[in-house]
Amino acid sequence: MKEPGYSRQKLGAPPGTLIHVGDVKSDKAKVSLMHYAAGFCDEHVLTDLSEIEGIRKKEGVKWINVDGLHDTELIKNIGDQFDIHMLLLEDILNTNHRPKVEFLPEQIFVTLKMIGVHQDGESLVSEQVSLILGEGYLLSFQEQEGDLFDGLRDRIREQLGNVRQFGADYLMYRLMDVIVDNYFLVGEHLSNLNIELEKNVLLNSEEQHLMDIQLAKRSLLGFRKSVAPLREVISGLQKEPVDLIDEGVNRYLRDLYDHIIQLRESIETQREIISGIMDLHLSNMANRTNKVMQVLTIIATIFIPLTFLAGIYGMNFKYLPEYKWRYGYLFFWILSIVVTLCMVIYFRRKKWM
Amino acid sequence: MKEPGYSRQKLGAPPGTLIHVGDVKSDKAKVSLMHYAAGFCDEHVLTDLSEIEGIRKKEGVKWINVDGLHDTELIKNIGDQFDIHMLLLEDILNTNHRPKVEFLPEQIFVTLKMIGVHQDGESLVSEQVSLILGEGYLLSFQEQEGDLFDGLRDRIREQLGNVRQFGADYLMYRLMDVIVDNYFLVGEHLSNLNIELEKNVLLNSEEQHLMDIQLAKRSLLGFRKSVAPLREVISGLQKEPVDLIDEGVNRYLRDLYDHIIQLRESIETQREIISGIMDLHLSNMANRTNKVMQVLTIIATIFIPLTFLAGIYGMNFKYLPEYKWRYGYLFFWILSIVVTLCMVIYFRRKKWM
Amino acid sequence: MKEPGYSRQKLGAPPGTLIHVGDVKSDKAKVSLMHYAAGFCDEHVLTDLSEIEGIRKKEGVKWINVDGLHDTELIKNIGDQFDIHMLLLEDILNTNHRPKVEFLPEQIFVTLKMIGVHQDGESLVSEQVSLILGEGYLLSFQEQEGDLFDGLRDRIREQLGNVRQFGADYLMYRLMDVIVDNYFLVGEHLSNLNIELEKNVLLNSEEQHLMDIQLAKRSLLGFRKSVAPLREVISGLQKEPVDLIDEGVNRYLRDLYDHIIQLRESIETQREIISGIMDLHLSNMANRTNKVMQVLTIIATIFIPLTFLAGIYGMNFKYLPEYKWRYGYLFFWILSIVVTLCMVIYFRRKKWM
Amino acid sequence: MKEPGYSRQKLGAPPGTLIHVGDVKSDKAKVSLMHYAAGFCDEHVLTDLSEIEGIRKKEGVKWINVDGLHDTELIKNIGDQFDIHMLLLEDILNTNHRPKVEFLPEQIFVTLKMIGVHQDGESLVSEQVSLILGEGYLLSFQEQEGDLFDGLRDRIREQLGNVRQFGADYLMYRLMDVIVDNYFLVGEHLSNLNIELEKNVLLNSEEQHLMDIQLAKRSLLGFRKSVAPLREVISGLQKEPVDLIDEGVNRYLRDLYDHIIQLRESIETQREIISGIMDLHLSNMANRTNKVMQVLTIIATIFIPLTFLAGIYGMNFKYLPEYKWRYGYLFFWILSIVVTLCMVIYFRRKKWM
Amino acid sequence: MKEPGYSRQKLGAPPGTLIHVGDVKSDKAKVSLMHYAAGFCDEHVLTDLSEIEGIRKKEGVKWINVDGLHDTELIKNIGDQFDIHMLLLEDILNTNHRPKVEFLPEQIFVTLKMIGVHQDGESLVSEQVSLILGEGYLLSFQEQEGDLFDGLRDRIREQLGNVRQFGADYLMYRLMDVIVDNYFLVGEHLSNLNIELEKNVLLNSEEQHLMDIQLAKRSLLGFRKSVAPLREVISGLQKEPVDLIDEGVNRYLRDLYDHIIQLRESIETQREIISGIMDLHLSNMANRTNKVMQVLTIIATIFIPLTFLAGIYGMNFKYLPEYKWRYGYLFFWILSIVVTLCMVIYFRRKKWM
Repeated sequence: MKEPGYSRQKLGAPPGTLIHVGDVKSDKAKVSLMHYAAGFCDEHVLTDLSEIEGIRKKEGVKWINVDGLHDTELIKNIGDQFDIHMLLLEDILNTNHRPKVEFLPEQIFVTLKMIGVHQDGESLVSEQVSLILGEGYLLSFQEQEGDLFDGLRDRIREQLGNVRQFGADYLMYRLMDVIVDNYFLVGEHLSNLNIELEKNVLLNSEEQHLMDIQLAKRSLLGFRKSVAPLREVISGLQKEPVDLIDEGVNRYLRDLYDHIIQLRESIETQREIISGIMDLHLSNMANRTNKVMQVLTIIATIFIPLTFLAGIYGMNFKYLPEYKWRYGYLFFWILSIVVTLCMVIYFRRKKWM
Repeated sequence: MKEPGYSRQKLGAPPGTLIHVGDVKSDKAKVSLMHYAAGFCDEHVLTDLSEIEGIRKKEGVKWINVDGLHDTELIKNIGDQFDIHMLLLEDILNTNHRPKVEFLPEQIFVTLKMIGVHQDGESLVSEQVSLILGEGYLLSFQEQEGDLFDGLRDRIREQLGNVRQFGADYLMYRLMDVIVDNYFLVGEHLSNLNIELEKNVLLNSEEQHLMDIQLAKRSLLGFRKSVAPLREVISGLQKEPVDLIDEGVNRYLRDLYDHIIQLRESIETQREIISGIMDLHLSNMANRTNKVMQVLTIIATIFIPLTFLAGIYGMNFKYLPEYKWRYGYLFFWILSIVVTLCMVIYFRRKKWM
Repeated sequence: MKEPGYSRQKLGAPPGTLIHVGDVKSDKAKVSLMHYAAGFCDEHVLTDLSEIEGIRKKEGVKWINVDGLHDTELIKNIGDQFDIHMLLLEDILNTNHRPKVEFLPEQIFVTLKMIGVHQDGESLVSEQVSLILGEGYLLSFQEQEGDLFDGLRDRIREQLGNVRQFGADYLMYRLMDVIVDNYFLVGEHLSNLNIELEKNVLLNSEEQHLMDIQLAKRSLLGFRKSVAPLREVISGLQKEPVDLIDEGVNRYLRDLYDHIIQLRESIETQREIISGIMDLHLSNMANRTNKVMQVLTIIATIFIPLTFLAGIYGMNFKYLPEYKWRYGYLFFWILSIVVTLCMVIYFRRKKWM
Repeated sequence: MKEPGYSRQKLGAPPGTLIHVGDVKSDKAKVSLMHYAAGFCDEHVLTDLSEIEGIRKKEGVKWINVDGLHDTELIKNIGDQFDIHMLLLEDILNTNHRPKVEFLPEQIFVTLKMIGVHQDGESLVSEQVSLILGEGYLLSFQEQEGDLFDGLRDRIREQLGNVRQFGADYLMYRLMDVIVDNYFLVGEHLSNLNIELEKNVLLNSEEQHLMDIQLAKRSLLGFRKSVAPLREVISGLQKEPVDLIDEGVNRYLRDLYDHIIQLRESIETQREIISGIMDLHLSNMANRTNKVMQVLTIIATIFIPLTFLAGIYGMNFKYLPEYKWRYGYLFFWILSIVVTLCMVIYFRRKKWM
Repeated sequence: MKEPGYSRQKLGAPPGTLIHVGDVKSDKAKVSLMHYAAGFCDEHVLTDLSEIEGIRKKEGVKWINVDGLHDTELIKNIGDQFDIHMLLLEDILNTNHRPKVEFLPEQIFVTLKMIGVHQDGESLVSEQVSLILGEGYLLSFQEQEGDLFDGLRDRIREQLGNVRQFGADYLMYRLMDVIVDNYFLVGEHLSNLNIELEKNVLLNSEEQHLMDIQLAKRSLLGFRKSVAPLREVISGLQKEPVDLIDEGVNRYLRDLYDHIIQLRESIETQREIISGIMDLHLSNMANRTNKVMQVLTIIATIFIPLTFLAGIYGMNFKYLPEYKWRYGYLFFWILSIVVTLCMVIYFRRKKWM
């Protein structure tokens, strides 16, 4: 996950300038409308934005979803149609923005992150989603066409569950719920990576594990960065006295709040576990040095005295009595074996062998 | 203790869908009723849930205990009988839920964890218990039939203590008290494991201790996860101005609150102690390397110079005066002994021997 | 200091059951009365508890001190005489309780710890003291007969200082003051142990220091556990608007509060110092390994090349010119000395010698 | 970045004495005026400060910018013209001051830091900027002539964007916005340095990396010191109920506030990453020792036994049977190769080769 | 700086007993009066305390400074003259007291620490200063005659600055300002010590640096202990609604408050820097071990095989073909050089040489 920053594209421009900040993840922007109420459900792609004015006046919930943020002209048009403040449009386009909620006189603006696991199975990818809730409509802005909301769309179409009974506020909750539910998958994924990492480190500490640990730390830091601010976002939605959110939806938000708290705690736990794995790794390295040392010490301390012994009987003194002994060579071997045995016993006692 | 997550069974389902999340720990769900007041105590297993309506109207405290959560149909039925909100039923079934309290117009919902020590004597097992307190009744939901509440049942039957004098609110307190009392046993168990671990590490640091330390850390993290949120739960029960909880029961809740504070402090202390044990272990490892090095150094520094000496007198120079000395060999040995003694004295001074 | 827990004696019993939890530290319980006012001071051991009723009605301050908590019957009797709530009696008997204050309609209950240094001069011993302040009387419960309050008793007898001018609230303050003053002695003792430990570690790091450090950590953790909650206790006594404590005594409580803050800060400082000592110790160990390595390296690098040299001239080649040189042996020695000198110069430069 | 302190020039002087504290970064102080409104824009260098009185009365926004703080006489003059409190002038001149905001009856005083990257590309340079917002005018004090505000000046001149439509309060926001935008560049720069450092450490841990890590830590500490207090500054500007700041500008300040929060989180993340790099480095060092040890151990454990073998057959015993064997030398070589192979297999198994 | 404790002199004494706690730093107590107003300044040493009563009634600011605290009789006398509460007198005499402020009906009591650098240039010395502000007078109590306030006295005498225009509240602020200004000198001193320490550690890590680091930590801990509580002291002075402190002086107190915040942040930064130095030191030690190991490994791995080679040709086998070769000795040398070159190339690649 890239470190959120402030793109060079943006710097120097005055506040309110609409410049898309981030990687262009989609080729073409697409605006699609889902218009539903308890009794009907209408769905089509909007090619002509002037349709919107007519639609706004109709009954029922209007969900307008925009995929692709690079077409700033299109975003500006939508902004004009719905009277969205310039600074909000700017926040929608700046895909490095921190999750936040803002309450405007007639709108509620929420921006948060969709997190997914990269195809390499290790790093995380993040996509910004912005939601604008107004009287009877919900705007959602995604960086690219995704399939995370498809399950929900099916449910609306098929009238499964209770989405069609509720208003746009409940729809906003449901979109956020889908995103937060997905966080649990990501959290579980990271937790599994850590369990595997811990297993590997316990089995056999290798140099590359260090990189894996550093990577896992970075992933968790990035994940936390996306999840942590949601606590205030959702708590804000619950507490701010606004007409746009119904009392009945509030209970659902509380549920969402509980999930975020659980995720945050789980992330902290994972961080402590990773730091424990780091300790394991370092301790393993020290342990291995220990073992290498022991082998060296055993071999060296056994053979160095023996070599000295052999050296003695390689000397050329004229008067060296042992040379003439009948069993000098045998004597040497017996001495060698005795010395070796003493050493081995000593090492056994020290539990080095 | 498994890391609480969000089961795949659940993901994608809309909020309010009743799906049992977690392992099925019991084969058959069982609903049992205990109906008592100061003067009588009636007890039987409920096979027909339609009985409930009649019982609800009767005087006295009605305690309905459900063992086993996999039978979602049964749970839904009970929920209908007592007008329990769908989201609460969902929380009851999701056995990975974080401990919490919720205040509803006519009910108080509490969910918390029973913690036990696994049969292997090391890891912890956790079971979710949900309590719903209403006017004159208490519902309790357990994952499986347990014996933790049996002592309390006996007391009610035999009219020991004062449970029968009080209402359902006191019964709820007593159930929570039994669970929290049990935490102290778990805490003591973990503390004992740490004391033993510390002893073992002090005696002889071995590689496997690292795993034990990591395991102990994980156990404490899991234990804390279950205990810590109870502080807010009980403080909520004390402070929320509800009719369901009597003033007299409040004093008992304060006592429970004190216990949770004590447990939390004790967990933090244990965490610091474990981190101290880790330091001990690492330091022991370093110490052992030290000792191995010392032995190697002593042997090598004594014998390497001696071997050199022996090497000298193994040379084949024609004019090497010592060869012809009468006591050349003796001279060699004296030299060797002197060198060795010097070394030994040096090492003694350095306290390496 | 033993980790406070929940004794097995207690578990399973309903709240309000009077069971003495902890070690029995005294053989016989003793109840003594000190009855004083500005003009008189009466003192005797109470053998018949029925006396109490008469005494309660008299003027002046009645201080009833109970030494020994194992006699639950006696405690219950006193409790009845003074209308003490069952849960408070339970707290008095549970000697593992966390320091706390409780305000009852006609009484104030305070429980705290007396800390002393064990005879071994290292570990700490803790004793629970409970105080109950009522209109005109003060009850104090100790685990065993101690001499910490004797100085105060003398002052009351001899009418030294101003205790006899004040009421029972001031007496309670004085008892707490004596206990807190004693904490400073304990704090100083621990601080001295740390200074000594630091000195020892700086002088010569030995393996056993690790245990001393771990022990010092544990002592501080235990000490903090007894001291830290007193902050809330005393702040509660100051702020709760109760008639039992006079405005004039409040200023003294503020003084006590300052002392507790100072103690807490001092404990945190000690903790940081201990962690510094641990670093010192670990660094010393690494340093020692370093030095051992240096000696080995110096000896080995000097003698290994020399041994090679000696090995060369021990070879049996037929055509080895040096063998026949007149000064071959001298040449060998000169070569050896030159090599050695080069090595020594190199090591000097590296500051290894 | 130098550690902010209290210059010796200042010490001993009474409060309110105007002494310039810090390095003199500019030769000559320069006062320039920019006077604009929606319809006009007038700009010139003020050489005669008495002009100010006339200008103050005119319509439109008066932005007076002072470059260079060493000319205390000039600062004092300006202070007199605008009724600035002595203590504020002192704060303007003390370039080591912590960022802060102060609300005066008719003025708002803000002081903050411009941060830049030093030409060496590693360390940071900091310059203090003070802003005083009054009715219709804004004073800005810089340590030296800079180009950070030039883009904004161009926009005012060319009437790009909306600066000329707003008052002096918006101008103040824009100046702060320029400075905070620049922080993102600095943050990105530090982040890039860390990424590079991490790469280098992963590739090949060298001694100098330690210094780089320590330097990176210091840079972040310094950066945090400048950024962190801004949170309270901007939150103060938002919340203080003052007439000088228009409701419409408040929304922009909220945006600025979000940026500061994001910067602070990013700095904390960087700190954790640096601490991870330190761990990487230390672990790499340990790893390298490990490898050096392995090579030594492999060579030594293979050759020490072989040397012993050669030593045996260099002995001069009279009765040494192998000497006379026909294939004694061959036997020796076979023995040597077998021993070596055993060792190699052992090391392979241990994964040391 | 000695760890503040509770002297044995004090223990057991009842509250309000006046005993001087701490080292006697001055031989003789000295009481001096400075009586000034805008128009006059009178100054003399008070030998007869009965003068005070007359002086109290006069107009102008009366500053009574007491040097030396061991003369408890004198302190008590002054206390009587100014109606100072016994507990405050006790705090004045207990030179180990934590900085604090207390508001009495007619007085404000402040106690804080003067910090200086010991003559050895390393450790810090601390002296307690107590201030009592009353209507028209200020009492200051120092442990010994110092020169920190002399600059201020000169200014009052010479009527430099604005002290003589203000009342006793401003005088109190000025005394505190002098003390806090001096903290910056101490902070700078500690910062310089750390910079030097860092330089030394980077240059050449030696064993004694460990002690220096531990000492620097202790100094900072002691410094923080004196500085940190001042935040609450000054914030208390600002916020408490008292008549004794004029509105105009409040702005100056705010300035003082900013200084304390800056000092606290600077201390925290220093603590992080020291912990970085410790890491540097430990890493340097590890690095040095590394280098020692490398030298040993290089020498050993080059010469051990060579020695084996020499050993081979020192064997006494009858049938050893090389012995009879014409260029056997040359062959040996070529072999040796080839082996050595291979090793050197290998080490170069590993970057060990």
